[in-house]
Amino acid sequence: MPEPAVEAVITQLVIANRILAREGVIDDFGHVSVRHPTNPGRYFLSRSRSPEIVVREDIIEFTLEGEPIEQNGRAMYRERALHGAVYMARPEVNAVTHHHARAVIPFGLTGRPLRAAFHMASVIGHKVPVWDSQAEFGDTNMLIETMEQGHSMASAMEGERCVLIRGHGATCCGSSLREAVFVSVYLKENAELVLQTLPLGEPNYLTPGEIDQTRAMLFSDMAQTRAWDYRAARAGFRGL
Amino acid sequence: MPEPAVEAVITQLVIANRILAREGVIDDFGHVSVRHPTNPGRYFLSRSRSPEIVVREDIIEFTLEGEPIEQNGRAMYRERALHGAVYMARPEVNAVTHHHARAVIPFGLTGRPLRAAFHMASVIGHKVPVWDSQAEFGDTNMLIETMEQGHSMASAMEGERCVLIRGHGATCCGSSLREAVFVSVYLKENAELVLQTLPLGEPNYLTPGEIDQTRAMLFSDMAQTRAWDYRAARAGFRGL
Amino acid sequence: MPEPAVEAVITQLVIANRILAREGVIDDFGHVSVRHPTNPGRYFLSRSRSPEIVVREDIIEFTLEGEPIEQNGRAMYRERALHGAVYMARPEVNAVTHHHARAVIPFGLTGRPLRAAFHMASVIGHKVPVWDSQAEFGDTNMLIETMEQGHSMASAMEGERCVLIRGHGATCCGSSLREAVFVSVYLKENAELVLQTLPLGEPNYLTPGEIDQTRAMLFSDMAQTRAWDYRAARAGFRGL
Amino acid sequence: MPEPAVEAVITQLVIANRILAREGVIDDFGHVSVRHPTNPGRYFLSRSRSPEIVVREDIIEFTLEGEPIEQNGRAMYRERALHGAVYMARPEVNAVTHHHARAVIPFGLTGRPLRAAFHMASVIGHKVPVWDSQAEFGDTNMLIETMEQGHSMASAMEGERCVLIRGHGATCCGSSLREAVFVSVYLKENAELVLQTLPLGEPNYLTPGEIDQTRAMLFSDMAQTRAWDYRAARAGFRGL
Repeated sequence: MPEPAVEAVITQLVIANRILAREGVIDDFGHVSVRHPTNPGRYFLSRSRSPEIVVREDIIEFTLEGEPIEQNGRAMYRERALHGAVYMARPEVNAVTHHHARAVIPFGLTGRPLRAAFHMASVIGHKVPVWDSQAEFGDTNMLIETMEQGHSMASAMEGERCVLIRGHGATCCGSSLREAVFVSVYLKENAELVLQTLPLGEPNYLTPGEIDQTRAMLFSDMAQTRAWDYRAARAGFRGL
Repeated sequence: MPEPAVEAVITQLVIANRILAREGVIDDFGHVSVRHPTNPGRYFLSRSRSPEIVVREDIIEFTLEGEPIEQNGRAMYRERALHGAVYMARPEVNAVTHHHARAVIPFGLTGRPLRAAFHMASVIGHKVPVWDSQAEFGDTNMLIETMEQGHSMASAMEGERCVLIRGHGATCCGSSLREAVFVSVYLKENAELVLQTLPLGEPNYLTPGEIDQTRAMLFSDMAQTRAWDYRAARAGFRGL
Repeated sequence: MPEPAVEAVITQLVIANRILAREGVIDDFGHVSVRHPTNPGRYFLSRSRSPEIVVREDIIEFTLEGEPIEQNGRAMYRERALHGAVYMARPEVNAVTHHHARAVIPFGLTGRPLRAAFHMASVIGHKVPVWDSQAEFGDTNMLIETMEQGHSMASAMEGERCVLIRGHGATCCGSSLREAVFVSVYLKENAELVLQTLPLGEPNYLTPGEIDQTRAMLFSDMAQTRAWDYRAARAGFRGL
Repeated sequence: MPEPAVEAVITQLVIANRILAREGVIDDFGHVSVRHPTNPGRYFLSRSRSPEIVVREDIIEFTLEGEPIEQNGRAMYRERALHGAVYMARPEVNAVTHHHARAVIPFGLTGRPLRAAFHMASVIGHKVPVWDSQAEFGDTNMLIETMEQGHSMASAMEGERCVLIRGHGATCCGSSLREAVFVSVYLKENAELVLQTLPLGEPNYLTPGEIDQTRAMLFSDMAQTRAWDYRAARAGFRGL
C-alpha cells in the first residue's frame, strides 16, 4: 500500500510535468524527476512519454542507478542516468529537470556566459556552467545514457542548480519539485531576456549580493507557493 | 455594508488583474492596485496571488502605509510600499501597476532610453526614467519593501506615468484603472516595437507635439472604452 | 428591407473583423471596411469597437465622406476619412483595412524599404510607400481624421495595395474583402520575415517578374478560397 | 472496398495535416502526402484545403504524375509535381511535406547554410541544399507545378531529407509520415534556434559523427512514438 507521502509526491510530479509543458520548457522530449520522500536511494520519473500527456499511471520508481522497481512493460526514458547521478552527488537535491528550452541553447553553442539579468533569475545562481559531451566522450548520440556520462555532467554542475549541455539543452535541480520547476522556468526566461538585451549592449547583470539576497527571498515559502499555484492553474490544476 | 462605488471598483480591479495576465504584462509576480473611490488615504490590492487567478475575495483594503484594514489571515504582497508611495506623492493618480514585462527590462539594463515610437505609445509620455535600487540602497533583495524605497522610486518617476526598475521591471500609473492598464500594455508593446526596430537603425520617434496631442486623444473616454472592452473580453469578461 | 447582396457582404465583414483580430493584424484599434455591393458611393464599417468583438449589429453604412446613414447613437471610428478617401480615389478597390501590425512599423520608422521576400508576399506588390503626416500636417494626434488627410494618404499609395504610416501602422486595400484581408496578413508576415532575415544579410527579394506572376496566381479564386476558409475557421467560422 | 492498410494510412495522413498546422509548420498553404502502402506508384494527398481543416473525405489518391484516381470534382493542390517527383526519385521515401515555415526562409534568401545546431535537428542531416527556381526556369509564379520543375527540385535534394526553396519555403521527406513530420518540425525549430544564436556568434554545430549517431537514435521507434503521440495529442488526437 503506497504511503501518503509517496502519493502526494506523485501528484506533484504529474503537475510538474504539465507545468513544464505548459510553460514551454519541455516539448516532446525532456523529463522531470523527484526523489522518493522517505527513501533517498530512489526517485520517481515517468515512463517514456512527453510531459504534456503524463498521468499518474506513467510514474515509475527507480533506483539511483536507473533500475525500475516495477517496470510492468513500460518503455523508459533513456537518459535516466542524469537524474540518478545528480541525486547521488547532491544529497540536498530532491528534484531534477532535463529540457531543451530553446533560449538557453545559444549560450551553450557559443560560449557566451549565461548570467542572471533580472531579479527573478537570481535563482539560477552565480554561474551556469556548460557541459560538452565532446570533451570526455567524443562523438556520441548526444544523450546522457551511461552513469559515467551522468557523473560527468553532475560534476560539471559545480554545486549550482543549472548546467547547460552543448548542442542539447540543460539540466536543472532544486531542493523540491517546486524549486526545480521555478529554476527551470526562470533559466529559460532569463535566457530569453538576455537574448533580447544583447543587441542593445552589454546588460548590467545582478551583483553577487543581489543574487544571494533575492534568491533567498524567492525560495521562501510565500514566493514558491504563489508561483506554483499560478503555474499549476495555467496547466489545468486549479484550486490546489 | 460596502458602498456601491467600492463594489464597482473592486469588480474593475479583478478585471484589471485578469487583463494584465492575459496580455502578458504580469506573470507569476506583479500586482495592480486602485485607490479607494471615496477615501483617498486607502487603496485596494489583492492578497499575495498571481493576477491571473485573483478573485473578489482576494481584494484587501490598505492604508497608504500598507497596513491592511481586514487581513483575515491572508498573505500579502511584500511590495505594497511602491503602491502607497505613489498614491502619497501623486494625488492625481488613482491606479498603480507593477510588473516584469520582459520587453521593458533591456532598457533598464543598458541605459538605452525607452521612447515612444508609435502613436499608441504616446501614453507613456515624454520620458521613461530608470530607478536603480543600487544607487541609494546598495545590494538588496531587489524588492521595494520599505516606504523609504517606495518614496525613492516614486520620486524617480518625475511626475511621469512609468518608471523602469533596473534588473526588475517597471511601475506604471494612471488617473484610473483603465488608464493604468492601458499605459502598462503600451509600455510593453512599445518596448517590443523598439527592440524590433533597432537592428534596422535608429527609429524616428514621435515628436513632443505628437505625444501631447495623441496622448490626449487616447485618454478620451471613447478610446479608453474601446480598449478596455476589448481587453476585458479577451480576459473572459464579455458584454460589460 | 436589406438586399441579399448587402446581407452577404455584412456577414463577410464581420468575419473579416474576426480574422484580422485572430491573425494578430488588428488588436484594440484598427478597422476594416467594405464598399456597398450595389451603391459604390457607400461603404460599411463597424461602430467604434475592436474587431475581435464586432457583431452584425455594429455595422453602419457610410457615405464616402464618412457620414453615417443610420447612426442610432452608436459611437463611430474617428479615422473614417482614410476609408472614404481610398474608395473615392480607387474605383477598383472594394475593401480597406487599417491596422497597427507591429512588424510593419519598423520600416516606416527607419526608411528601410519593405519589399516582398517570399512568394506569398507578392500580393503587396512592387512597392510599399510610406506616408508621414508630419510632411504635410506637422504635429497632429496621428489620426487620419479629415478628408484632407485621407486624400493625402490615399494619394501616397500610388495605386498600390499597401501604404505604411510613419509611427502608426498601415492601410491596405483590395478588390474584395478576401483580397484586402489576404494582403493585410501577408504584409505583416513578410515584414516579420524580413526582420528575421536582415541580421543574416540582405535578402534576395522576389524579382518584378516573380511578383507579377505569383500575385496573379494568389489572387485566383482557388487560392483566395483556400486562405479565407482557413482563416475563417481559425476565427471560429467553420464550414462556410 | 478499401484495404485496412489504406484506411490506416489515411487516418495517419489526416493527423499529419493537423499536426503540421498545430506546430506552425504549415499555415494556409502547404501540404503533406503519403505513398500508397501497397502500390508504390500512387500517393495520397488532400484536396486543395489548408491542413488545419483537412478531414478524411478530402484525401485523394494520385498517380506519381499527379493524376487523381477519383477526383469527384474536388479542387486539387497545384504543386502535386513536387510530391510525385520525390516519390519517383527516392524509393525509400514514403512521405513528403511542403511548407513555408517562416524561420527556414531567411537561409534560402541569403545563402547562409542551415546546419544542425542541436541534437534534435540531427534529423535534417549533414546538409540542407537550396533550390532556386530562377536558375533553371527564370521568372515563374514560384510554384512547382510541372513535373520538370518537380524533378529539378527533387534532384537538388541530393538524397537528403530537406531542401530549401528560395523565396518560398521547403520540402521535407521521410521513410514514414511520422518521420517526415518529425523532420519538418525540427527543420523549423533548428532554423529558429540558429536565428536566435547568430547575434551571439557563430554556433558550434553538431559534428558529422554526432549527426549520424543522434539521427539513428531519433529515428528509433521509441523516439518516433513519443514525438508522434505528443504532437497528435496537441493537435486534438489523444489516446492513440
